[in-house]
Amino acid sequence: MTNRQIIVQDIPKGALSQDHFALQSVDMPRPEKGEVVLRTLLMSIDAANRSWMQGATYREAVEAGDVMATYAISEVVQSQSSRFKPGDIVASESRWAEYVAWPAHKCQKMPPVPRLENLLSVFGIAGKTAFHGLVQVGRPIAGETIVVSAAAGSVGGYVGQIGKAFGCRVVGIAGGSEKCDWVVNHLGFDACVDYRAAGLFKALRDACPAGIDVYFDNVGGAVLETTLAVMNERGRIVCCGAISQYDDAAPTGPRNLPGLVVVKRLRMEGFIVMDFAKEDAKAVRALQSWVEDGKLKVEEDIVHGLENAPLALIGLLAGDNKGKRMVRVGANPKGVA
Amino acid sequence: MTNRQIIVQDIPKGALSQDHFALQSVDMPRPEKGEVVLRTLLMSIDAANRSWMQGATYREAVEAGDVMATYAISEVVQSQSSRFKPGDIVASESRWAEYVAWPAHKCQKMPPVPRLENLLSVFGIAGKTAFHGLVQVGRPIAGETIVVSAAAGSVGGYVGQIGKAFGCRVVGIAGGSEKCDWVVNHLGFDACVDYRAAGLFKALRDACPAGIDVYFDNVGGAVLETTLAVMNERGRIVCCGAISQYDDAAPTGPRNLPGLVVVKRLRMEGFIVMDFAKEDAKAVRALQSWVEDGKLKVEEDIVHGLENAPLALIGLLAGDNKGKRMVRVGANPKGVA
Repeated sequence: MTNRQIIVQDIPKGALSQDHFALQSVDMPRPEKGEVVLRTLLMSIDAANRSWMQGATYREAVEAGDVMATYAISEVVQSQSSRFKPGDIVASESRWAEYVAWPAHKCQKMPPVPRLENLLSVFGIAGKTAFHGLVQVGRPIAGETIVVSAAAGSVGGYVGQIGKAFGCRVVGIAGGSEKCDWVVNHLGFDACVDYRAAGLFKALRDACPAGIDVYFDNVGGAVLETTLAVMNERGRIVCCGAISQYDDAAPTGPRNLPGLVVVKRLRMEGFIVMDFAKEDAKAVRALQSWVEDGKLKVEEDIVHGLENAPLALIGLLAGDNKGKRMVRVGANPKGVA
Repeated sequence: MTNRQIIVQDIPKGALSQDHFALQSVDMPRPEKGEVVLRTLLMSIDAANRSWMQGATYREAVEAGDVMATYAISEVVQSQSSRFKPGDIVASESRWAEYVAWPAHKCQKMPPVPRLENLLSVFGIAGKTAFHGLVQVGRPIAGETIVVSAAAGSVGGYVGQIGKAFGCRVVGIAGGSEKCDWVVNHLGFDACVDYRAAGLFKALRDACPAGIDVYFDNVGGAVLETTLAVMNERGRIVCCGAISQYDDAAPTGPRNLPGLVVVKRLRMEGFIVMDFAKEDAKAVRALQSWVEDGKLKVEEDIVHGLENAPLALIGLLAGDNKGKRMVRVGANPKGVA
C-alpha cells in the first residue's frame, strides 16, 4: 500500500500555476505515540491556502518542499492514542495527501451529520467565517446596507444570506454577469454588481442608494478602494481576505486610505475564524436554524481526486467556483452518507 | 474701521502655496439677529485645514472664493443675542479674518484660564484629539508600545506624553534628527525615529523590540505602510490624519493593506475630536492633572499677524513646527493674560 501526496515545488512570485506543485508516491505514514493515521476524505480549498505561501502569518509559512497544507475531514484508520479509534471521523489541519500521521490532540471529533460536505461548508470554516465576521465584527442592524465581495464564493454567499436573515439590504460584488444573476436569483441578494464591468463606483452607488454600512471584504485592492468611497459615516469594514492581492507580485494599496477612514470615522477590522472558536457552538446553532428555515442555501462545489487539488485552488483564485469548493480525496467509510 | 480677511483664491491641486490665498480689506461685518461680531484673537492652524480644501468631509468643503475656515478663540465685540455680551471670550469655528459675524448658538463661552493659548493647545483641539484618540480609540494598557507619527506636532507630542503617563513605551516618528532629539530629550519619549533617514523599517523595529500595540497615525502613506509591518497581532491603529497625502496629487495607498489587517487581526479606526464632545470635560480634567503633575509639557508655536496665516499653514504641512501652531491675530482684551 502506498500513499500519494502533493508538495509545493516552488513558491510562486506571481500567479499560481500547476508547475508550482508535484505529485509524489511515498511510503504510508507510521504513527508515533500520541498520533493517529488519517485517511483524507475531503480537503477544504480556500484563498487562504495561497496566502500561506506568502510567508508566516497566523500560521507558519508553507515553503518549497513542504507537502501542501489544508484543512480536512478525515477518517481515523490507525490510532496510537486513547482519544480516537479507527472509524472515527475528525476535522483537523492536514496535508494534500491520501494519508497523514497527525497528533491526536490536534484532531477534533465530528458529530454525525447528514452530509460530511456540510462540515466544510455551512457548518465548517465557510459558514463560521461568514457568521463570526459579519455578526461579531461587522455588527449589522436591520435596515442597514451590507456589501460583500466574492459574493458567489463560499463565505460571501453565506454573508449575504445571513445579512438578509438580519433584515438588511444586501448587495454582492462578483465577477461576470452570469455569477451576478446567480447571486441575486438563486441566493436572494437584493443586487449584485459586476466588478469586471466598467463603472464599478457608479454601479455600487446605484445599488446602495442609502450608502454602505458594513462592507465584508474578501478581496482588497481596487474593489476595496471603490467601496470606501461609498461607505457611510461610522461604517464597518470586515477584513476577511485579500484574494485580489495574493497572486499579485506588485500589489497596490487603496489610495484613499487612511484619509477616508478618518473623515468617515470608519472601523476596519481583521479577523481569523479561529479567533472566535469559543463561540462556534453559537454560530453552528444559528446556521442550523437558518438552514432549517430555508433562509440559507448550502452551495458546495466539489472537485474529485487529490491530483486535481492544484487546479481546484488555481481556479478558486480566478473566481471560477460557486459556493464552497472542496476536493473529495477518499470515499466515505461504510455507513457514512 | 475696516476688516481684513484672507480668501482662498484657487484650490491647490498639489502643494499648497501663498499664491492660493489673497488678503482683502472689506467692510466691518454687521450682525443679524441671533449673531455676534467676533474679534479674532487666536486662530488654530491644523493639517485638517488643508484637507478641507480637498472636498466635503465631516464639514463642507472650503472652495475657491471662500474666506479660509479655521477654529478660533475670539472676543465678542457686538451682540444681537442674549447669550453673549461684549467682552466675552468664546471658541468657535471662524474665518481667517480680523472680525466675523457668527451665529451665537455656534459659539462656546470659554472659562477663564491663565493663558488663552492653552485653549487651542493642551485644553483645546490638540490636547483633546490626543486624549480621545489615544484613550478611547487606541485603548493602551501599561507595558504596551505606542508609536505616534508627527511626534513633534501638537497632537503627536501630547499622545506620547499621555502614553508615558499610562505606563507605556512610547516611540515617536518625526522628520530630521534635531526634531527627534527634541522629542526624546524635551518631551520624554523613549525613542524617536527619523522618517527622512534611510531604513525606517529597521529603525522602527529596533526602537520597538516588543512590536507595536498602538499606532497613532497622523500621516498615512509610506510611514503607515512601514508601521503596519511592525504591528503586533490585535494591534490598534488610530487614524487621526493623513498629512502626507493632503499635498499629494497622486497619493499611494499602503500596499500591505488589507492583507496585514487580516492576518494580524488589526483594528484601524478613524475619529474626529468632535465625536467625543460629550467626554471633553473628562479629557480636560485628566489633561489638567497631568499638566499640574509635570507629566505634560505644553508646547506652543505662535505666529504673529493674520497676514502670516498662509505661511503658517504651509510650514505646518512641511513639518516646521514644534508643538501646537496658532496665529495671534488681535491682542487680548484688558485683564486677560
